[in-house]
Amino acid sequence: MPPSVASPLVDHHCHGVARADLGPEDFASFLTESDAPAAPGTTFFDTQLGFAVRRWCPPLLDLPAHCPPARYLARRRELGAREVNGRLLRAAGITDYLVDTGLPGDLTTPQELAAAGAATAHEIVRLEALAERVADGVDPPDAAEGFLHGLATAVQDAARTAVGFKSVVAYRYGLDFDPAPPDPAEVRAAAARWLDRRTPGGRLADPVLLRHLLWSAARTALPLQLHTGFGDPDLRLDRCDPLLLTDFVRAVRPTGCSLVLLHGYPYHRGAGYLAHAFPHVYTDVGLSLTHTGARAEAVLGEMLELAPFGKIMFSSDAYGLPELYVVGAQLFRRALARLLTGWVDDGSWSPDDARRIAGLIGAGNARRVYRLGAGGADG
Amino acid sequence: MPPSVASPLVDHHCHGVARADLGPEDFASFLTESDAPAAPGTTFFDTQLGFAVRRWCPPLLDLPAHCPPARYLARRRELGAREVNGRLLRAAGITDYLVDTGLPGDLTTPQELAAAGAATAHEIVRLEALAERVADGVDPPDAAEGFLHGLATAVQDAARTAVGFKSVVAYRYGLDFDPAPPDPAEVRAAAARWLDRRTPGGRLADPVLLRHLLWSAARTALPLQLHTGFGDPDLRLDRCDPLLLTDFVRAVRPTGCSLVLLHGYPYHRGAGYLAHAFPHVYTDVGLSLTHTGARAEAVLGEMLELAPFGKIMFSSDAYGLPELYVVGAQLFRRALARLLTGWVDDGSWSPDDARRIAGLIGAGNARRVYRLGAGGADG
Amino acid sequence: MPPSVASPLVDHHCHGVARADLGPEDFASFLTESDAPAAPGTTFFDTQLGFAVRRWCPPLLDLPAHCPPARYLARRRELGAREVNGRLLRAAGITDYLVDTGLPGDLTTPQELAAAGAATAHEIVRLEALAERVADGVDPPDAAEGFLHGLATAVQDAARTAVGFKSVVAYRYGLDFDPAPPDPAEVRAAAARWLDRRTPGGRLADPVLLRHLLWSAARTALPLQLHTGFGDPDLRLDRCDPLLLTDFVRAVRPTGCSLVLLHGYPYHRGAGYLAHAFPHVYTDVGLSLTHTGARAEAVLGEMLELAPFGKIMFSSDAYGLPELYVVGAQLFRRALARLLTGWVDDGSWSPDDARRIAGLIGAGNARRVYRLGAGGADG
Repeated sequence: MPPSVASPLVDHHCHGVARADLGPEDFASFLTESDAPAAPGTTFFDTQLGFAVRRWCPPLLDLPAHCPPARYLARRRELGAREVNGRLLRAAGITDYLVDTGLPGDLTTPQELAAAGAATAHEIVRLEALAERVADGVDPPDAAEGFLHGLATAVQDAARTAVGFKSVVAYRYGLDFDPAPPDPAEVRAAAARWLDRRTPGGRLADPVLLRHLLWSAARTALPLQLHTGFGDPDLRLDRCDPLLLTDFVRAVRPTGCSLVLLHGYPYHRGAGYLAHAFPHVYTDVGLSLTHTGARAEAVLGEMLELAPFGKIMFSSDAYGLPELYVVGAQLFRRALARLLTGWVDDGSWSPDDARRIAGLIGAGNARRVYRLGAGGADG
Repeated sequence: MPPSVASPLVDHHCHGVARADLGPEDFASFLTESDAPAAPGTTFFDTQLGFAVRRWCPPLLDLPAHCPPARYLARRRELGAREVNGRLLRAAGITDYLVDTGLPGDLTTPQELAAAGAATAHEIVRLEALAERVADGVDPPDAAEGFLHGLATAVQDAARTAVGFKSVVAYRYGLDFDPAPPDPAEVRAAAARWLDRRTPGGRLADPVLLRHLLWSAARTALPLQLHTGFGDPDLRLDRCDPLLLTDFVRAVRPTGCSLVLLHGYPYHRGAGYLAHAFPHVYTDVGLSLTHTGARAEAVLGEMLELAPFGKIMFSSDAYGLPELYVVGAQLFRRALARLLTGWVDDGSWSPDDARRIAGLIGAGNARRVYRLGAGGADG
Repeated sequence: MPPSVASPLVDHHCHGVARADLGPEDFASFLTESDAPAAPGTTFFDTQLGFAVRRWCPPLLDLPAHCPPARYLARRRELGAREVNGRLLRAAGITDYLVDTGLPGDLTTPQELAAAGAATAHEIVRLEALAERVADGVDPPDAAEGFLHGLATAVQDAARTAVGFKSVVAYRYGLDFDPAPPDPAEVRAAAARWLDRRTPGGRLADPVLLRHLLWSAARTALPLQLHTGFGDPDLRLDRCDPLLLTDFVRAVRPTGCSLVLLHGYPYHRGAGYLAHAFPHVYTDVGLSLTHTGARAEAVLGEMLELAPFGKIMFSSDAYGLPELYVVGAQLFRRALARLLTGWVDDGSWSPDDARRIAGLIGAGNARRVYRLGAGGADG
């Protein structure tokens, strides 16, 4: 003990990092889910995440922990994005990235990320972005049929190369969608309506098409990640409670698809219940640890209540900044080590169980669910 | 200090244990609220409850704590159900069982349980099971009238021998039911409709009849237990938030009936609010501690926020396995002792208050609310 | 360290204290949000708040901590309300009171409170009470027009002298109100309807008028406090989840008004999300610490997860009893000091950051948001 500090991690939900050097404002914007500048008199560095970045990252760039943001950012520019990305990614101790490639911006590809981090990359296909790309390419005459056919092909193609799908129906509509699969005529009508009004790049928010995407992905039987809980102000957080998915969870069970509920905060105990009650439901720590910083142990503790230990997975949900990989991995390792050490010390858990469960949550569960192959010693 | 470790407990909500020896799969099925086998590559032993059973129970069967499940199950079979039930029940340190007799299975009766545990048994009558038994006995002609008359008699009879009622309207409908009592014509129509379609053993899920049961029980002025929060996948957890009962709580207050909100997790803070705001509402720790194991202290702490200390009661919600009595009692005692010791040590509570409140939550409140008589020193 | 123990506090949400001596039952009634006597066999002193009062207040009246309630109340009568109020208020270490003057009872005015506590008082105007006072003064003929004109003038006048407004729409309707401003014709019709049925002193619960008050206040661009979460049994707690305000938060943003979400418990993590996602949203610790006593550290920790540290403010929500100022301030200081000390000790935060953030939450944020001027060293 501590059981998990040195174990390699599989990060089952992450994104590319910025290729270019970032100015102070661009950097700060990646520290928050807000889409607005910080309130007058405040800064996004004065948050648990800001403090966690200042705690873990400056030493990796030869600076003292907690040095002022301006000094850290100056050093970052001095070293250049390429060097910083490499140093931070390699320090995170992650062996496998499962990269959601559906976010915009000048970001590293999975291959670039893998090279920078000396790790292996796998792809997670974001359904809404896939549909929007297909829509951008359809030819106007007979557009709805062409779109739906192209979408079906794109989902099949993705299923051959990707290790899973992801849906952001939480952002685009809410999790209180109709749990049943839409019928084909409904889907055709919704596609025609959407394409008719759409300009290139237009985003998909039609609830019938969003459900069609979910069911299309589920029928491939690949794992399907669903954003739940905390995220940017596009969503209504109370409509992202994972328990709103209960009837969809029941309906989708016969497809053989595993559902992976991302984040969940502050409804992560409800996500844990679903993982407890339904064999095909899994949960994630993700964003909930990154943004709660020094409170990560308390939040992770709540996730380790009802969810069976074979159903919980690590992710950083890092996006844009390699710092978020470092912070995600360190917060997770420390929080888990402190929880498990405490339980071993008071006799609640055996040391062997603690080591074994740390390996499952950090890597083994993701290897099994996404069929990644054996990996290292903890796989 | 620790104030509660040695106190005898009143378990105000529990069930019978299996009379027969259990195979590994039957045993594991009692460790979860799921109704399906564990997901591929996982086991129900890898849960907080599974680890708690392995921590507390093997020593009572002459094995080391945390021994592997297979070894524990082998020893269990070697000793036989009767010996195991007796050893574990007596080790739990419970003086009174308030047994919900409405669950199916080859379970011990309250009398058998009391004999095995060297304790006193009292009965809690589950309303839906009572109604189904009455329905099984009514004669077709004029069935609805006969059923309702038989039900009224059965409720009156139960009120003479039982110490309280229990409702699982949370499972059968949800807690978002109409808070007003249904009028007699509505009840008659609903009874006729239900009986007409029903085959023997058919379960009661009609919302009008479920409400009729609640009001019939409330009018006896005996305490009425309501399942809230976490339970098996029959329920929609978001429809089991105890706060959905607020208007029913207000409506039922003039009957003089006490409402005891069971479990509540993850909405137990809302249950605590109701116990704070309304004189006739009480809360329970139950299932929430059993299933959260090493996290029991954190969960119990949340219950000890708003709820007045005279309104909180211990239960194990044990069902099927005598292990669940041991685990429920040990987790409760340890969690409470650690919380109270911490508060005494930092000066927040006085030692006398801590001892007194531990006695109330563990036994005294239940003795008062269910009118059990004085009991032992802590009654 | 501990960083915040000695800092002066700005209490941004509080009320007057009773001018007269209080009998035991009146005293106890201020310890609970319940509107009924304690349940048989229980007392409101057996709560986290009751224990916190007994821990912090007796020494200020020359008695040992945790002395029995009867002895404390006897000593209180012996000293008299004036002496007790002065001793306790001055011991709380609060430099500025932002007093909601809209509560009934024989309470100190802000000026009297300031004199007794050797502090500065500012006024927060409770919108519903303001509207009811205006309604009490209108002349019957043409009442709706006169009322609305008088209300507009009263809001303008209040904006010149008060530092903010407060709404209790949570109690009067719920937070699930229509987020859009009502149109003038709707408002006139609602005013006519309400005034027509109203007797003097009648309270305002019409949802159109409640929304009109919110928008009238927002347009002054003064900070607007909104009760959310836990409060007395008038409210339905599940309709006081601050996340129900999300669309109103979005709609009101262009006015330039800051929204301060009070209390929030048990939905305070959702309030933290809103403060994270929206630049004009702030959160408060208030009632949630006072009523959770020895659990204040756990609850405050949850508030220090998503909410940026420049967005959180201290309040006691004290009402009636000067004891609630003492308890509110002490629980806050201890909880914050313990959390920050822990984070500094484990390296998560730097000592300088901890001191700075303690100053912001305890006083600086409120000084900035309510434009109170510099105050002392921590302003």
